[in-house]
Amino acid sequence: MNTRLLTSSAVLFFAALVYAELPPETMPAPSNVPGADYPRLDAEGRGYFQVKAPEAEQVQVNLPQGQYDLKRDSDGIWSVTTPPIEPGFHYYAFSIDGTMVFDPGSQAFFGASRHGSGIDVPEPGVDFYEVKNVPHGNLRSERYYSSVTDSWRRLFVYTPPGYDKSPDTRYPVLYLQHGGGEDETGWANQGKTDLILDNLIAEGKAVPMLVVIANGTLPRPEGIPFGYSREGMVPFANEMLENIVPFIDQNYRTQPDASHRALAGLSMGGGQSFIVGLANTDTFGSIGAFSTGLFGGIRSKDPFDAEEFVPGLMADVERFNEKLDLFYLSCGEQDERIQFTKQVVSDFRSHGLEVEFNSFPGGHEWQVWRKSLHDMAQRLFKP
Amino acid sequence: MNTRLLTSSAVLFFAALVYAELPPETMPAPSNVPGADYPRLDAEGRGYFQVKAPEAEQVQVNLPQGQYDLKRDSDGIWSVTTPPIEPGFHYYAFSIDGTMVFDPGSQAFFGASRHGSGIDVPEPGVDFYEVKNVPHGNLRSERYYSSVTDSWRRLFVYTPPGYDKSPDTRYPVLYLQHGGGEDETGWANQGKTDLILDNLIAEGKAVPMLVVIANGTLPRPEGIPFGYSREGMVPFANEMLENIVPFIDQNYRTQPDASHRALAGLSMGGGQSFIVGLANTDTFGSIGAFSTGLFGGIRSKDPFDAEEFVPGLMADVERFNEKLDLFYLSCGEQDERIQFTKQVVSDFRSHGLEVEFNSFPGGHEWQVWRKSLHDMAQRLFKP
Repeated sequence: MNTRLLTSSAVLFFAALVYAELPPETMPAPSNVPGADYPRLDAEGRGYFQVKAPEAEQVQVNLPQGQYDLKRDSDGIWSVTTPPIEPGFHYYAFSIDGTMVFDPGSQAFFGASRHGSGIDVPEPGVDFYEVKNVPHGNLRSERYYSSVTDSWRRLFVYTPPGYDKSPDTRYPVLYLQHGGGEDETGWANQGKTDLILDNLIAEGKAVPMLVVIANGTLPRPEGIPFGYSREGMVPFANEMLENIVPFIDQNYRTQPDASHRALAGLSMGGGQSFIVGLANTDTFGSIGAFSTGLFGGIRSKDPFDAEEFVPGLMADVERFNEKLDLFYLSCGEQDERIQFTKQVVSDFRSHGLEVEFNSFPGGHEWQVWRKSLHDMAQRLFKP
Repeated sequence: MNTRLLTSSAVLFFAALVYAELPPETMPAPSNVPGADYPRLDAEGRGYFQVKAPEAEQVQVNLPQGQYDLKRDSDGIWSVTTPPIEPGFHYYAFSIDGTMVFDPGSQAFFGASRHGSGIDVPEPGVDFYEVKNVPHGNLRSERYYSSVTDSWRRLFVYTPPGYDKSPDTRYPVLYLQHGGGEDETGWANQGKTDLILDNLIAEGKAVPMLVVIANGTLPRPEGIPFGYSREGMVPFANEMLENIVPFIDQNYRTQPDASHRALAGLSMGGGQSFIVGLANTDTFGSIGAFSTGLFGGIRSKDPFDAEEFVPGLMADVERFNEKLDLFYLSCGEQDERIQFTKQVVSDFRSHGLEVEFNSFPGGHEWQVWRKSLHDMAQRLFKP
C-alpha cells in the first residue's frame, strides 16, 4: 500500500474542503439578504466578494474607492479580497465582461436611478444607527396626491415612540430629502433615519419629532436647462408647499408653524433645501444642507453667488438670522465639495450670517449623511 | 449631385433613428423603476426586453412561462419580444453566458431569497389593485422583539383610512403571510395589499381592518427535517402567539378576540396558516390558505392525511364549524396543487366540515394571491 499516495489524496481532499469553507474571522455584510454568505467583511473592513460566472472572461467589483479584479476557480466561481473599505454604506456592482451585474447576496438599494447592490461596513466604535433595545418609532408609507405631477406619490413619515399613545401631543417636523438618482427609500434604508432618531430620543439628545421623507425627483419646468437654479426648483417648491406640508399638517399631529418645521437634505436635496428653504423662511424655520454641490464643483460659474439663489440673503442677514432657528451646513472631509462649502461658510460668517457647520470623515457618501442627520437632529427644535 | 446617394443616406439616417426609437404601441412595465424604458409591454402583453452586454455570447430572459433568446445588435444591445405574458406579477432574470443577471430597468422584488427583477403585466378589465382616487390607508413598518430569534424583526401593519382620526374605533386584524423565499415585503410590494384593501373599503365590500404582514421565515427546530409538519411549525406558532399577536394587540386598537382575528397566507404561508391556525382556533376565528402545497405535490406521502397536521379535525368537525367564522381555501387553476386542493375540499365537505373554496386563472403566482386576498377579505369579519 502506497501510504504516500494516500496522504496526498487526503491532503487534496482536505484542501478542497478548506477551499469551500468560508474565510475565517469574517462575517456576512450587514447589508446582505438573510442567509447570503457573500459579500463578507473582516475586522479591518476588507471586502470578500464572490460571484458565479462560469463563462466569463473578466469579472471586477466596482466600489467607490476603486475597481478590483476577481479570480476564477475551477468551478467558475470568481472571488476577490479587497483592501479595507471605508466605513459606511457604499453602492457597488460587478462588471462581468463589461456588463453591470448586481450581487444577489446584497439587498437592493435605490441609487443611480436603479435598484443596485450596497455594502454597509461597520465603523468601529460607532453605533448610533444600530438597532438597540430602546423604544422604537415606526415608518409609515403614505400615498398623497401631487398636483405637480398629477399623480399619486409615496412618502414616508417617521413617527417617534409613543406617537399613537399620546393623542394630545403635537410634534415638530423635519422634512428630509435624498440625493440625485435616489428616492424616498434612501433615508429610510441607506440612511437608517428611524434608528438614528430612536437612539437620539432614547438618550434625550433629540426632541421627539416627525421626519417626513418624500421623493424630491420632479420634472423640471420646460425650457429650464438646469435644476440647480431658482427656476429649476419651482416644481420642488410647489410640491413641498402646496402638497406635502399641507398633507402632513392635515394628517399628523404637527406643530404647524415655521419654528417647528425644518427642511434638510443631502447633495441634490441639500441644494433643494438651501434654495427653497431660504426662500420660504415663513414655512421652514430651520434649514440644513449636507454635501450640496451648489457652492461649487458642479457648476462652471465660480465663485458662488448667494444672490443668484437667494436674493437678499447677503443684504439682509439680520432678517435671516432672526427668522432662522438653525441654519446648518455639513460636508464630507474627503468630498471635493468641502473646499467650496468652507469658503461659503467663511463668507456667510464674515457677512454676519449665522451658520453652523460640521464635517465628517468620508467622501460623497451615506456615512457622512447619517452623521449629518445625527448631528443636526440634536440641534433642532431646542428652546 | 447624386440624388440617389443622398436618398440612400437619408434612408440610412432615418433607419438608424427608427431603430433607436421605442417600439410603437408599447409602454414601460408598471413594475419598472421611474424613467426606465425597458422592459416594455404591448396591449397583448408581449414583453419587450433589452439589456446591454457587448461581450456576451448568449443572452436569455427567464420567465415562469419559458426562456427566450435575445438577439444582439451592432452596439452590443440584446433584445427580444416574447409571446404574450400571463397577466400579473412574475419574477424574472436574464441569463448572460450562464450567469443570473437582474434587469436594472426593473424594481427589485424579494423572492427566491434575493432581490430580483419582476414584471407586472396588467390584466384587461382588472383594476382592483390599481391606485384609485379613494381614501388611502397607510403601511407602517414596525420593529418588534422576537423571543424566537432573539433579535429585532420587522413587520408591516396596514391601517385603514381614518385609523388615526377615529381614536375610539377598534378594528379586526388579518395576519397575512408570504411564501417560501419571500419576506414581509411580498404582500406589501408584489401583493399590493394596501391598494386592494383601500379599494374594497371604499366600495363598502370589506370592513375596515388592520392587516399585519410579518416575516414568516424562522429557523426550524433542531432535528426536524421538514418544515411542513406540526413540529416544524413550532417556531412560527410561537412567533405568532407569543410575539406578533401580543405586540399588535398592545400597540394597535384591535378587537382582541378570535372572531376578529384571521390568519391567512400563500404557499408556505398557506401551510403555516392551515396548521397553526386550525391548532389555535381560540386565537384565530378565520383561516385562509392560498395555493398551499400541504395537500399534495410537495410531499411524497399521499393521500393527504388531515389528522397528521390537525389532530381531531375530521373527528370533531362540529367543533371546528362552530369555532371558525371562515375557513377559506384557494388555488390557481393552472397550479399543479389544484387537484389536491379540490380533493381535500371535497373530502372536508363530505365529512361535514364547512370550507369555502375559490380558484382563479393562473399558476403558482401573485395574480392568484392578489385575487385570493381580494376574495377572502370580502368574506371576513362579516356578521
